[in-house]
Amino acid sequence: MRSSKKKYIVSGSAGVKAQQIQFADQKQEFNKRPTKIGRRSLSRSISQSSTDSYSSAASYTDSSDDETSPRDKQQKNSKGSSDFCVKNIKQAEFGRREIEIAEQEMPALMALRKRAQGEKPLAGAKIVGCTHITAQTAVLMETLGALGAQCRWAACNIYSTLNEVAAALAESGFPVFAWKGESEDDFWWCIDRCVNVEGWQPNMILDDGGDLTHWIYKKYPNMFKKIKGIVEESVTGVHRLYQLSKAGKLCVPAMNVNDSVTKQKFDNLYCCRESILDGLKRTTDMMFGGKQVVVCGYGEVGKGCCAALKAMGSIVYVTEIDPICALQACMDGFRLVKLNEVIRQVDIVITCTGNKNVVTREHLDRMKNSCIVCNMGHSNTEIDVASLRTPELTWERVRSQVDHVIWPDGKRIVLLAEGRLLNLSCSTVPTFVLSITATTQALALIELYNAPEGRYKQDVYLLPKKMDEYVASLHLPTFDAHLTELTDEQAKYLGLNKNGPFKPNYYRY
Amino acid sequence: MRSSKKKYIVSGSAGVKAQQIQFADQKQEFNKRPTKIGRRSLSRSISQSSTDSYSSAASYTDSSDDETSPRDKQQKNSKGSSDFCVKNIKQAEFGRREIEIAEQEMPALMALRKRAQGEKPLAGAKIVGCTHITAQTAVLMETLGALGAQCRWAACNIYSTLNEVAAALAESGFPVFAWKGESEDDFWWCIDRCVNVEGWQPNMILDDGGDLTHWIYKKYPNMFKKIKGIVEESVTGVHRLYQLSKAGKLCVPAMNVNDSVTKQKFDNLYCCRESILDGLKRTTDMMFGGKQVVVCGYGEVGKGCCAALKAMGSIVYVTEIDPICALQACMDGFRLVKLNEVIRQVDIVITCTGNKNVVTREHLDRMKNSCIVCNMGHSNTEIDVASLRTPELTWERVRSQVDHVIWPDGKRIVLLAEGRLLNLSCSTVPTFVLSITATTQALALIELYNAPEGRYKQDVYLLPKKMDEYVASLHLPTFDAHLTELTDEQAKYLGLNKNGPFKPNYYRY
Amino acid sequence: MRSSKKKYIVSGSAGVKAQQIQFADQKQEFNKRPTKIGRRSLSRSISQSSTDSYSSAASYTDSSDDETSPRDKQQKNSKGSSDFCVKNIKQAEFGRREIEIAEQEMPALMALRKRAQGEKPLAGAKIVGCTHITAQTAVLMETLGALGAQCRWAACNIYSTLNEVAAALAESGFPVFAWKGESEDDFWWCIDRCVNVEGWQPNMILDDGGDLTHWIYKKYPNMFKKIKGIVEESVTGVHRLYQLSKAGKLCVPAMNVNDSVTKQKFDNLYCCRESILDGLKRTTDMMFGGKQVVVCGYGEVGKGCCAALKAMGSIVYVTEIDPICALQACMDGFRLVKLNEVIRQVDIVITCTGNKNVVTREHLDRMKNSCIVCNMGHSNTEIDVASLRTPELTWERVRSQVDHVIWPDGKRIVLLAEGRLLNLSCSTVPTFVLSITATTQALALIELYNAPEGRYKQDVYLLPKKMDEYVASLHLPTFDAHLTELTDEQAKYLGLNKNGPFKPNYYRY
Amino acid sequence: MRSSKKKYIVSGSAGVKAQQIQFADQKQEFNKRPTKIGRRSLSRSISQSSTDSYSSAASYTDSSDDETSPRDKQQKNSKGSSDFCVKNIKQAEFGRREIEIAEQEMPALMALRKRAQGEKPLAGAKIVGCTHITAQTAVLMETLGALGAQCRWAACNIYSTLNEVAAALAESGFPVFAWKGESEDDFWWCIDRCVNVEGWQPNMILDDGGDLTHWIYKKYPNMFKKIKGIVEESVTGVHRLYQLSKAGKLCVPAMNVNDSVTKQKFDNLYCCRESILDGLKRTTDMMFGGKQVVVCGYGEVGKGCCAALKAMGSIVYVTEIDPICALQACMDGFRLVKLNEVIRQVDIVITCTGNKNVVTREHLDRMKNSCIVCNMGHSNTEIDVASLRTPELTWERVRSQVDHVIWPDGKRIVLLAEGRLLNLSCSTVPTFVLSITATTQALALIELYNAPEGRYKQDVYLLPKKMDEYVASLHLPTFDAHLTELTDEQAKYLGLNKNGPFKPNYYRY
Repeated sequence: MRSSKKKYIVSGSAGVKAQQIQFADQKQEFNKRPTKIGRRSLSRSISQSSTDSYSSAASYTDSSDDETSPRDKQQKNSKGSSDFCVKNIKQAEFGRREIEIAEQEMPALMALRKRAQGEKPLAGAKIVGCTHITAQTAVLMETLGALGAQCRWAACNIYSTLNEVAAALAESGFPVFAWKGESEDDFWWCIDRCVNVEGWQPNMILDDGGDLTHWIYKKYPNMFKKIKGIVEESVTGVHRLYQLSKAGKLCVPAMNVNDSVTKQKFDNLYCCRESILDGLKRTTDMMFGGKQVVVCGYGEVGKGCCAALKAMGSIVYVTEIDPICALQACMDGFRLVKLNEVIRQVDIVITCTGNKNVVTREHLDRMKNSCIVCNMGHSNTEIDVASLRTPELTWERVRSQVDHVIWPDGKRIVLLAEGRLLNLSCSTVPTFVLSITATTQALALIELYNAPEGRYKQDVYLLPKKMDEYVASLHLPTFDAHLTELTDEQAKYLGLNKNGPFKPNYYRY
Repeated sequence: MRSSKKKYIVSGSAGVKAQQIQFADQKQEFNKRPTKIGRRSLSRSISQSSTDSYSSAASYTDSSDDETSPRDKQQKNSKGSSDFCVKNIKQAEFGRREIEIAEQEMPALMALRKRAQGEKPLAGAKIVGCTHITAQTAVLMETLGALGAQCRWAACNIYSTLNEVAAALAESGFPVFAWKGESEDDFWWCIDRCVNVEGWQPNMILDDGGDLTHWIYKKYPNMFKKIKGIVEESVTGVHRLYQLSKAGKLCVPAMNVNDSVTKQKFDNLYCCRESILDGLKRTTDMMFGGKQVVVCGYGEVGKGCCAALKAMGSIVYVTEIDPICALQACMDGFRLVKLNEVIRQVDIVITCTGNKNVVTREHLDRMKNSCIVCNMGHSNTEIDVASLRTPELTWERVRSQVDHVIWPDGKRIVLLAEGRLLNLSCSTVPTFVLSITATTQALALIELYNAPEGRYKQDVYLLPKKMDEYVASLHLPTFDAHLTELTDEQAKYLGLNKNGPFKPNYYRY
Repeated sequence: MRSSKKKYIVSGSAGVKAQQIQFADQKQEFNKRPTKIGRRSLSRSISQSSTDSYSSAASYTDSSDDETSPRDKQQKNSKGSSDFCVKNIKQAEFGRREIEIAEQEMPALMALRKRAQGEKPLAGAKIVGCTHITAQTAVLMETLGALGAQCRWAACNIYSTLNEVAAALAESGFPVFAWKGESEDDFWWCIDRCVNVEGWQPNMILDDGGDLTHWIYKKYPNMFKKIKGIVEESVTGVHRLYQLSKAGKLCVPAMNVNDSVTKQKFDNLYCCRESILDGLKRTTDMMFGGKQVVVCGYGEVGKGCCAALKAMGSIVYVTEIDPICALQACMDGFRLVKLNEVIRQVDIVITCTGNKNVVTREHLDRMKNSCIVCNMGHSNTEIDVASLRTPELTWERVRSQVDHVIWPDGKRIVLLAEGRLLNLSCSTVPTFVLSITATTQALALIELYNAPEGRYKQDVYLLPKKMDEYVASLHLPTFDAHLTELTDEQAKYLGLNKNGPFKPNYYRY
Repeated sequence: MRSSKKKYIVSGSAGVKAQQIQFADQKQEFNKRPTKIGRRSLSRSISQSSTDSYSSAASYTDSSDDETSPRDKQQKNSKGSSDFCVKNIKQAEFGRREIEIAEQEMPALMALRKRAQGEKPLAGAKIVGCTHITAQTAVLMETLGALGAQCRWAACNIYSTLNEVAAALAESGFPVFAWKGESEDDFWWCIDRCVNVEGWQPNMILDDGGDLTHWIYKKYPNMFKKIKGIVEESVTGVHRLYQLSKAGKLCVPAMNVNDSVTKQKFDNLYCCRESILDGLKRTTDMMFGGKQVVVCGYGEVGKGCCAALKAMGSIVYVTEIDPICALQACMDGFRLVKLNEVIRQVDIVITCTGNKNVVTREHLDRMKNSCIVCNMGHSNTEIDVASLRTPELTWERVRSQVDHVIWPDGKRIVLLAEGRLLNLSCSTVPTFVLSITATTQALALIELYNAPEGRYKQDVYLLPKKMDEYVASLHLPTFDAHLTELTDEQAKYLGLNKNGPFKPNYYRY
């Protein structure tokens, strides 16, 4: 998964979960990064998130047969354009089918196309984007196009691009610069090709991880004069924006779509409720019934994991540092323990804390034979995997993403995804969740682009609650769900507008 | 339950649930209230909450045998004091036993006594209180006493006082002025006896409903000069405080303990999860399995009701106006419908909206025979009960709190608690929940009393998150729950203090 | 509840649950019973079941005002008949309303009336019955009447008769001999008045507990020549019948309706799932969330209790002797322990074993303060309550059915219903469950009465599976449930008759 | 998956679930089978079960590089033996590791080795076996060896052999004749090599599907003189044995291990509760929350599917033909409908009936776009897949085991595993379940081999309940589960032996 040539640290998750995290020592890691690799001369490397990888159950065509770098190829789409750089433009048809399938599961974006198409709310928008390039992103991009925007796009991750989808986008006229297996130099080259264009200057940024934003800051700071706003998706990117803001260096409004309610509840609680089961099954084929499990952390992710495993007949223990979450765990029927109290007896250890070294070598030493250890939280810091890379322990790769770490006495620990995020590495993210995120991004772009002068200052904003509610409402038809409307009398009684927002900002849902 | 002599409107719930309510037309009701009843000349009547009633499964000694008003009796406790007014001081022993039982289930307050007793953080505090007078309140009062405070107390509700408990408090030296079945005049007389004392002036207020605060504002405004703060418990009282604050008339700091996390989650989600079942069983003996239920509103209360009924094998439909809550209902496995779509087929209708006229006469007309209708939300407005008081319908009281409303064709609707709150009327509130509230009140008093000059201004405050967390931590031993402590390294990584607070204010839990 | 004059042992439950019980030492208790009380000279006393009591949330009119024995009263119904003996014929109207309410919740019997009424399948049947006399029984009796039968009825329990219902039945012409609070002599007198009639001889027996059958065996053995069969409802009565059968003394066919699937699953699994919560709430008002509970026994009753408490957020441990049930507990997510392992830590102990001395004095000594102990299993033997009646322990009755047993060090155990069945003593049985039982009884009577000569011999039979299925099908409309019919092709493929039975006899459901 | 050269029908599942099935028209299919393929001249083809395939998440080494038939190879193990025929003996080491991993998850067999090893209860046993050859089977075989038996083994399925495991068994001295991808001729040749040996004659048969038994009947009927019994695992094989028994042709005792409680509850209820989620996720990556699902059939399999999907937030409808199961569905909280009522609205259709044509072309025509259709029941008959193979519909294979069937109007139905069993095709069977089955087989062999003359006649037997209980007890340590033992007094009271059996045969669990 990791190129051995790369020296920089690949630690991150990206875009998914981890609420309260403060990246105290991650900043130090940033500083430690070696740079100046190969023919590039940037002062910093690509961000953590750019090297994570979504696994996909769909195995796409293998491009290993073609070793030529896309940068060295001459390709044209059927309309004669060559303003793109993808692995193989001929894969466009296969990618188109993937996009069509994704469209069927992203009705909210399709509805947005329909509802907003007449007015073209993004007419005149020139959006430069840097995200994972998947079928779902393609649906987003084509939606932005349908709403009037011009788009140029790069990948936010060197591994996650689906070449066929990139080809399909290029074929239908989108200037896309991305392929699976970019080098770090390729990565920045692609981003540069998106922004450094003769006669075209972006006025909106859609970023996932902050690398695109960073690049423009570094290389084309003047470009911000015309930019109306940044929409940022990931924890990492949002963190960077808040740092810029604190430092007084943020020069355009930015929208933090990571902390919107729908994203948080769906990416974390509901999605993890399913992906913990999926990830464990795909890697270990274990039976959940009767298993003793300890879940470290009872935030949204922990709540999802606990609910799922309890429902499948596991006996679940919880550890927490926060007494309020701890009391919730109690009321939800979980024994609240310290990890040490149960570490000898549990069959599975799952971390969901956003913290570091939650599972230490000492814990690992005390686990029983065959204990499964995995991380659903944030980054790859929760389990002290480094402590396992010592001479007396033997590592055995038994399946993709599954290692047996073997103690001298023969005890085996089953480590999943080397302590990286189980749900990203070993399960898939349902299109429905990606649909919510993509719709939120589209609405954030529309909001920032159309906001009257002065509504947003040079700061980081959350999506207005009303738009959060709108995103939710666009997804209700998926469930054939029928919303009730307030009568005038009721709206007056509650002191609410009939169209929302329906809750105060501090409402907890 | 309601004295027919009273003309004022008795609509309220009190102290329990309903987050987002804005009392648009309640204010009008306030204005409509007739006043000047009996020998009093106040410009307003007692608040809604003062006439609600907690039912209790324990049937205490009936005092109907003694018709003399307590105000006309001469009573002394065993120490010779007569600075109290209760139904019958001789019931003290029975009340003491109730208090002792409650103590066993309120370990947090007992722990607070122990932990804080050495330092007497309330030494010098003179607290005047106006709350329900129950065994649990007695434990609170005696805790405040143990922490150094002097207390004088009245009831916030004319029905809810447990006479034996009041007697026990009086016997042990607390000036208590309260009995079950006060007249409105008695009500204000009791409050006045608490504050209007020779040689004693309160410096702290603990209120539930705002009537005590209101009385001091009206009659002894100068008293506020010495008052360090108000702790208010109820939705209604908090609403009044915010109005005072907006109007610039709040002259001391006030603490809103109603909206603290622990109170909200426990009073609403967890408590209602149990009380919906309890209330329905005690009134109707129905079987839940296989029943079709529609729950109107998917806030915390609705979530609790739905979870419980689903777990018991009911088929649950949900109505919502807020698309975000609606999407949560979908993901939690409930069909989201409009009430009209299912009204003909459901066996039970439960309102949890905080709204008015959610169930209208039209809905009631269409319900099937034997349909049960009840309210878990707020106040008594959710079901349009008034619309059922028409000549063509026959009302038949079949049990306490259970009416059959009979249509001309013989169809019967089973209306519970006449549309008032089912959980207050027909089930009991577990001591554990009351313990959380009482602990929060005690901590709020300590905080306000000891806060350095200037920390709190003349405004309404939420309890600091750290104290919310402390309340939670005091309740963990009940569950033998063991909290994990952050290591120094972890605290630094997360950028947190090892003792909390552990979450940002906007965290949703 | 128990008359102190009575010397015989009142231990039983009866009629509800406990599958595999063998009454080894109960037989000895039978032998120990003193007899010859009052003016009767029977060789044995009334059965255990005859003195149990169903509690009812409905508090009916108190008859304590009238001390005259019904046997000494002269009463006539409006049609002039005096062939009955009830408390007060004037209460008929109130009883009729209760019956009408019950009819609304027993649609299966009402459907049976309708479907079978044309053909009068019980024309000519002369049924003598001995059951609890409640509104639900009244619906059964009037259904039997509608189907053509003549009925005479006595109570199977000296406490459980609802006087108003008995009056209503007498008023509408049923010879009923029963009242609440019969003496033992009354009990047998009433039964005798049912069978010892000039010019009328029963040809069918419907019994609950076996006392009626016993009486006829003792006093009128010749009557069996005309009797076509016995339908027996209770565990105890069924046990007696099997003993008669083994001894070769059973002289007519008998139908065991206690072990039919619908009865077992509904009375045990589904009903207990609800009644454990109800019984605990009504007695203790406790909160379930976070509580640690140990459930002894994982049969149908234990499964129901565990499922309910787990759903309410309790942490549940299970004890079992049977490894298969134990493995089920594991797979359902419960820690399987020995009672000793958790007895110090649990908040609630629930017995569901059908065994004796499952909770011993030693266990009780080790429980923590405030631990709640109750029995959902069988009889009153599961908790060794007798061991608590020692001088060093103090008993304190704190509520109806709730005792505090206090240890010298102040520790209190909360004992519910003195160790008798919690669900019978402290909660109510939903009409729906009674409906299933009553329908089963009616069908068993029809089957036995109409069976061709030779189909049933002098043995104890289970209801044919097809009739079990019919009972179930009659209850589906309650849930608006729509059954699928097999096509001819499918029936042939499965080798089944399209109308059932659909499963082999050993099918486990 | 299917060799196009094969003409015989490959329809079956086998070995997993389907309770009440009667193979009415399967017999016709038997008759229709063409025979005389290739160089063999048997009068019948291999059974259905022999061509099913377990998928495995572990992808083993690909043997496609070696096209030589194992029959044409000369191989020897390290001890010089060549009495085996496997793909490649050199893969033994890899297979050994797989076996060792499996051993860790099959503690019951390991315990059996330990407990019974001293006495060698299978000393003298010569077992010929025909089962799937997997790591779990290897653990069984080596356990049988450790208990004293000599074994010879063939595969019961031409696809399911794990070549590495077969190699490991051969290396350690087991005469194994099996490889992945046998031809039909190979299949029977392998079986023949197991039984047709100079100087060795089997005295026990372990069969899965009945082919081995069939072969001996056909070719070596005299062998039965020395055979002490047959242990049969599969539905199909058991069915054949019952037919032989009915026809009076069964000449040795046979043990039906398919219908033992532990197998039924674990293979069906508990295993399907997990595999329905696993199968759907692996094929479709769908999100369960909020999805509308109809489950056809509420037997053990249906109950497992419904429970899992409900827990994950799906809205589940149930169809049933049996009113008792239907009533259970109601009480468990599922709307009971006819398929037609919901077919237009559901997102997923799951069949669990054991019936045929439950989902017809008419239903398929009415499903909404993207509806997922799959079978968890029995065989491949439940969905009328044949009806979809018409010219106007387009099939598109989008992933392994996933077809889009496209209607002329563009509607797509997502058909999984072409209507074959989802759990066999698209998920894995947990080792724990296989462990229960293997342990049951071992105990059945021990029982039959050691039974005193006359205990078993020439009939088909269920495993004695006591041994069922023993299998369960051997699996309790996996869960650190502690069984309670009856005291002498309790055993006497219940009339039970302290060591079981604990339940009557009709007990339903």
